[in-house]
Amino acid sequence: MLFDVAITISLKKGVLDTQGKAVAASLHGMGYETLKEIRVGRFVEAVVEAPDSVQARSLAAGLCDDLLVNDLIEESRIEVKSR
Amino acid sequence: MLFDVAITISLKKGVLDTQGKAVAASLHGMGYETLKEIRVGRFVEAVVEAPDSVQARSLAAGLCDDLLVNDLIEESRIEVKSR
Repeated sequence: MLFDVAITISLKKGVLDTQGKAVAASLHGMGYETLKEIRVGRFVEAVVEAPDSVQARSLAAGLCDDLLVNDLIEESRIEVKSR
Repeated sequence: MLFDVAITISLKKGVLDTQGKAVAASLHGMGYETLKEIRVGRFVEAVVEAPDSVQARSLAAGLCDDLLVNDLIEESRIEVKSR
């Protein structure tokens, strides 16, 4: 079976987000004063083949552990949907 | 009122995702043969001040139009939650 996997990767709270700071400074410079905070992360969409959704989720967790997520400074959220 | 805004930014279908191709090649090299496709986008979390959720959403759309999203090649999805 094929599954759609969506992985949202964000910096952990407390980790300095230099990209977010730069984006915030630009947007404030454009007049977005009511923007209080902004943090930039990554969004990964994958299609995987697995016998069931449990194994699709564990495969996605493997993708995160082995390559996609630096768990020292990042946290991730995995959503799995069958196609 | 403060609102949490989550913006998911993905490449439009048909746009070559060089980053996704590189990630897929690495993961296949690690043995993830059942990974059929992978695309890498961005995930932006912001806190904005607005009178109501409608104006919070339109402010978020402005952030996308003015800086965050290149609408020639990217599409975005905005979620707004009050704090």
